[in-house]
Amino acid sequence: MAFPSDIEIAQINEHDRMKDINEIAEKVGLESKDIEPYGHYKAKISGSGISKAMKNDDGKLILVTSINPTPAGEGKSTVAIGLADSLQALGKKTVLALREPSLGPVMGIKGGATGGGYAQVVPMEDINLHFTGDMHALTSAINTLAALIDNHMHQGNQLNIDPRRIIWKRALDINDRALRSTVIGLGSPINSIPREEHFEITVASELMAILCLSQDLDDLKERIASILIAYTFDKKPVFVRDLHVEGAITMLLKDALKPNLVQTLENTPAIIHGGPFANIAHGCNSILATKLAMKLGDYTITEGGFGADLGGEKFMDIVTPRLNHAPNAVVIVATIRALKYNGGQQLADLENEDLKALTLGFKNLKRHIQNMRYYNVPVIVSINRFATDTENEIKLLTSLCDEVGVDVELTEIHHKGSKGGIDLAKAVIKAADKASNYSRLYEDEQTTEEKIATIASEIYGANNVEYSDKAKKQLKSLKDNVWDDLPVCIAKTQYSLSDDPKKLGSPKDFTLHVKSLVPKLGAGFIVVLTGNVMTMPGLPSKPAALNMDVDNTGKISGLF
Amino acid sequence: MAFPSDIEIAQINEHDRMKDINEIAEKVGLESKDIEPYGHYKAKISGSGISKAMKNDDGKLILVTSINPTPAGEGKSTVAIGLADSLQALGKKTVLALREPSLGPVMGIKGGATGGGYAQVVPMEDINLHFTGDMHALTSAINTLAALIDNHMHQGNQLNIDPRRIIWKRALDINDRALRSTVIGLGSPINSIPREEHFEITVASELMAILCLSQDLDDLKERIASILIAYTFDKKPVFVRDLHVEGAITMLLKDALKPNLVQTLENTPAIIHGGPFANIAHGCNSILATKLAMKLGDYTITEGGFGADLGGEKFMDIVTPRLNHAPNAVVIVATIRALKYNGGQQLADLENEDLKALTLGFKNLKRHIQNMRYYNVPVIVSINRFATDTENEIKLLTSLCDEVGVDVELTEIHHKGSKGGIDLAKAVIKAADKASNYSRLYEDEQTTEEKIATIASEIYGANNVEYSDKAKKQLKSLKDNVWDDLPVCIAKTQYSLSDDPKKLGSPKDFTLHVKSLVPKLGAGFIVVLTGNVMTMPGLPSKPAALNMDVDNTGKISGLF
Repeated sequence: MAFPSDIEIAQINEHDRMKDINEIAEKVGLESKDIEPYGHYKAKISGSGISKAMKNDDGKLILVTSINPTPAGEGKSTVAIGLADSLQALGKKTVLALREPSLGPVMGIKGGATGGGYAQVVPMEDINLHFTGDMHALTSAINTLAALIDNHMHQGNQLNIDPRRIIWKRALDINDRALRSTVIGLGSPINSIPREEHFEITVASELMAILCLSQDLDDLKERIASILIAYTFDKKPVFVRDLHVEGAITMLLKDALKPNLVQTLENTPAIIHGGPFANIAHGCNSILATKLAMKLGDYTITEGGFGADLGGEKFMDIVTPRLNHAPNAVVIVATIRALKYNGGQQLADLENEDLKALTLGFKNLKRHIQNMRYYNVPVIVSINRFATDTENEIKLLTSLCDEVGVDVELTEIHHKGSKGGIDLAKAVIKAADKASNYSRLYEDEQTTEEKIATIASEIYGANNVEYSDKAKKQLKSLKDNVWDDLPVCIAKTQYSLSDDPKKLGSPKDFTLHVKSLVPKLGAGFIVVLTGNVMTMPGLPSKPAALNMDVDNTGKISGLF
Repeated sequence: MAFPSDIEIAQINEHDRMKDINEIAEKVGLESKDIEPYGHYKAKISGSGISKAMKNDDGKLILVTSINPTPAGEGKSTVAIGLADSLQALGKKTVLALREPSLGPVMGIKGGATGGGYAQVVPMEDINLHFTGDMHALTSAINTLAALIDNHMHQGNQLNIDPRRIIWKRALDINDRALRSTVIGLGSPINSIPREEHFEITVASELMAILCLSQDLDDLKERIASILIAYTFDKKPVFVRDLHVEGAITMLLKDALKPNLVQTLENTPAIIHGGPFANIAHGCNSILATKLAMKLGDYTITEGGFGADLGGEKFMDIVTPRLNHAPNAVVIVATIRALKYNGGQQLADLENEDLKALTLGFKNLKRHIQNMRYYNVPVIVSINRFATDTENEIKLLTSLCDEVGVDVELTEIHHKGSKGGIDLAKAVIKAADKASNYSRLYEDEQTTEEKIATIASEIYGANNVEYSDKAKKQLKSLKDNVWDDLPVCIAKTQYSLSDDPKKLGSPKDFTLHVKSLVPKLGAGFIVVLTGNVMTMPGLPSKPAALNMDVDNTGKISGLF
C-alpha cells in the first residue's frame, strides 16, 4: 500500500484527533475570552490574550533553517513541526511559530506549506486556503491604497505625483502571469490616468513585511504612514502620510495583525501568522507570533524561508534585533539526497549510493554551519532519513559532521511523527541549555555598502561585490535621503550561496552583482536585488487546480 | 446635543449589549456544533445546522422594498431591521435575511449598509469590513478562474479561446476606476497573451449571483461549470467545464456558501449572506439565507435592492420560484421627503411643506403598490417619519393611500428602534395572516422578447421596447444556442421607473431601450442592459477613507 497523501493523513478521524481550539488555548494558559475562534479549530489571539501573555518570561527559541534548497527536497517545515511534537512528547511545553501559506502557489504546484506526512499543522485545508483571512485583508489594504493613489491623481493631483514614478503596486494572492505587466486607466478620462501597473503576489508586497515586523497597531500605523509610494514630477518622495490614509489602511489590518492559533496532528499549539516572500522580503513569520509563542511556551520552534543564507541570515540580522531575543539553538535541515545533488549527482540517480557526491555536497552544509556559528549560537544538523540512504552514506555524513564538531541527528518525522524526532528533540534541549551569546553580523549604522560587503563575504563566500550603474545612483539617493541606516534585505537566488543558481556546493572566488536597491521604508529595510526577482509567479501547464474538488458535504480532495 | 452617528450608537456598551453568538443561535434552536463562530459575535451556520433547520416548516416571509431611491433617502434597510426588532418585541420569533455589504463603497462614500440609528445589525464594523470573508473568497475564486483562463491560452490554448472574446472578468472588492479598462499580458512572451481586461467590483460578478442562487455545494459546482467564459476563434462558446476547474473554484467557495449569523442592536437574529449588484444582477441576499431564516423563524424579514421595480421585481420573478415561497406580505418604504422630491420639489427645499409636490410624487409610490399587487400579495406602505414632516403632509399622504386601499404605517425606527415600528409590525402580522396567492408575471418558457415586454409594460409603464442592432443579433444568438428559456434580469437606472434617470414620479408613454443582452448561464438568467451600467465604481474626490482611523486597542472611528 502506498504511503497516504498529506490530505489523506490530515483527514483520518480528523474530528476525533483535532481538539477544540479552546482546549489548545488552555494548554498555553489562555481562556476563551483571550481568543477569537474562527470555526472550532482555528482562532485569533485577541488583544486581551496578547496583553496577558506579554507578562510572561520568554521561553527558549529554536530556529529551523536548511541548506540551499534542491529539487530533491529537504523537509524543513516537516522537521520544524515534528520537532515541536517530539518536544511535547518529552513533556516540554512547546509552541510552533510558522508562516502562513499563500493561496496563489496552492493552485499551481502540488506541495503544501503545512508540513507533510505525520508532521502537519491542521486543519490543513483551511490553513492552505482562506485561513482566517489575513492574506485577504492584506490584498484589500494593498489595493485600496493603490486605488486611493490613482484617485488622488485623478481628482486634481494636489501632491503632484508623477504617474510614471509610482512605486506602490497592486497585488493578488494568485499566481497570475498576465498581471505582471499591464496598462491601467485606459478608455476614458473618467477612468483615471493611463499608466503602467505591475501586480505582485500579496506575500511579495511591502505591506506583508510590515505586518510581520509590527509590534502593535500604533507601530503598524506608523510604518504604513512611512511607506514610500511614489515620487513627484520634481522627484520628491511621496509617503502614505501625505495622502492621510494610514488610519484607513491600518483599520483594514486590525484583525490581520492578531496571530492565529491552530494545532499539529499531535495537538501541539501552533501560531501561524504572516508569510513574507523569502527573497525580496525577510521570509519569517510575524514578530508578534514568535514573541507570543515564546511567552506562551517553554520552547518555541520557528523557521526562516529558503536556506540559512536567506531566511537564516535575515532572521539573525533583521528579525532578532526587533524580537530582542536570539535563537537559543539553530537546527539546519538537510537530506543525504539533497547533499548528493549539491555534490553533483543527478536527480534521477539519487537513489544510488554516491559517497563522492556526498563528500562534495557536504561543503554546502558545512558553509551554512559556519555561517550560523558566526552569530555565536549553538548549531545542530538534522538529517531527514530516506529509505534509500545507505549505511555507508550515513556513516560518512556522521564522520564529516564530527570533523566540524557539529551534533548530527537522524530523523524519521515524515513517516513516524514525534516518534521519529525524539533524538533531535533531546539534542535541541541540550543545546538550548547552553548560555546564548548572540553577536550580530553588522550594525545598522554602517553604510549600505559595508553591510552588503559583510554579508557577501561572511555568509555567501563572495570575494567581490559589483554595483550596476543604476545601483550606484540608488546608493547615492539612499545617502541623500538619509535612508541608509537601515538593515539590508538581499534578494538572491535560493539555489546557490552565490547569485548564480547553477553554482551548487560552496562556491568560492565569485562576485556578487548588485543590480538595484529598493528602500522599503515602512518595513524598515533596503532590498538589495542581485538578480531578476519575479514578484508575481505564474501557473504551470497543468495547474494543481485541475485535480481539486469538493463534495456536497464540503470534503476536499486533490489539495496536496 | 446632535444625534449620535451610527458607529457611535453601535459602540455604546457594545460588549454588554451584544450577546455571544451561541446565545443568538440558541434562540433559533441551533446548538454550538451547528455554527462555526468567527469571533464571539459572528458565526457561519454549518452543514449540520443547515440540515437540522431544513427539517422545519417555513415561517412567513416579508419582503421590504421601496419607491425609486432619491437623494433624500428612504431608509429601507433601517426599516427592515427595525421591523424585525418590533416583531421580536411583540413576542414573534423573527429572523432577518439581509445582503452583506461590499467593502469598496465603504471606502468611498459615507453611508452604511447595516441599517442606521437604533436599527442596526452588529458588529457593524466587522460586517462592513471583512465580515466572515465571503467577499474575499469570491474575489479569490473570480481571479483564480481568470488566471486559469489566461494560463490556458498561454500554455498552448488547446480550447482555441479567442483572447478578444473573453467574457470572464477579474474583480476586486474596491472602488477602483483605474481598473475599468486595462491591457494585461504585456512585457514579454512569458507574461501570457496581451489582451483587454475590464475589472469589475466583486459584487457585480456573475459568481456572486451564482452563490446567491445556489441550493448547496453540488448546485454551486454545476452552476460554476455552466459559466460562459469565452468564445473560440470560430465563435463557439467555452464554459468553465471545458477547463475542468469547477471543482477548484467551488472548493474556494466551500465556506462562503454557508450563511452568516449575527444580531441586531436588540439581539434579533440576522442572517446576512451574499450581496449581488441590484442592477446587473438580482440584488437579493442568498436563497440559502432566506430559506434558513424561514426555517428558523416564524417571521423572516428580507429586502430587495433599489426600488420595487428592480429588487422587488427580481425577488418576485427570479428568487421566489427558486425559493419556492412567495412573500406573505410586501412592505414598500418611502418618506414624505422622497415623495416630494419625486414630485419635483428641490432637495434644498424638502424641509418646507409642499402638498402639491407630495401629490405628484405619490404617483411613484402608487405605481409600486400596483406593481407589487400584480403578484397577488398583500402590500403595506411604511413611512419613515422625519421631524420636518408636517401634519398636513401626513394627513394628505394618509388619504392618498386610502384612495388606493393600501394600509399605511408611520414609523420612527431610526431614533427609537423597535418602539418606533410597533404599528408597522402589527400591520405586517395581520397582512401576512391573509391567504397568499402569488402569481408570477411571466413564465420562463416565453421568449426573451415577451418577458422583456411584459416587465416593461406591466412594471415600468413603458408603451414600447426598442432593441439596438447589437441586441437584435444577441436575441438571435440566444435562440440559436437555446439559452432563452431563462428569466430576464433587467439592468436599468434605479432612479426612475423608465430607463431615463431624470424621469421621476410615474412616467408614461415612454420607450424602453434595450442596448444589449448578456447570458449569465451559471446564474441562470439573461441580463438585459438598458443603459451603460458601470460595474466598477470610482472613489469621490474626498474618499471616506480619509476620515477613518483605528486606535491601538482596535477601536475604529470615522466608519459611518
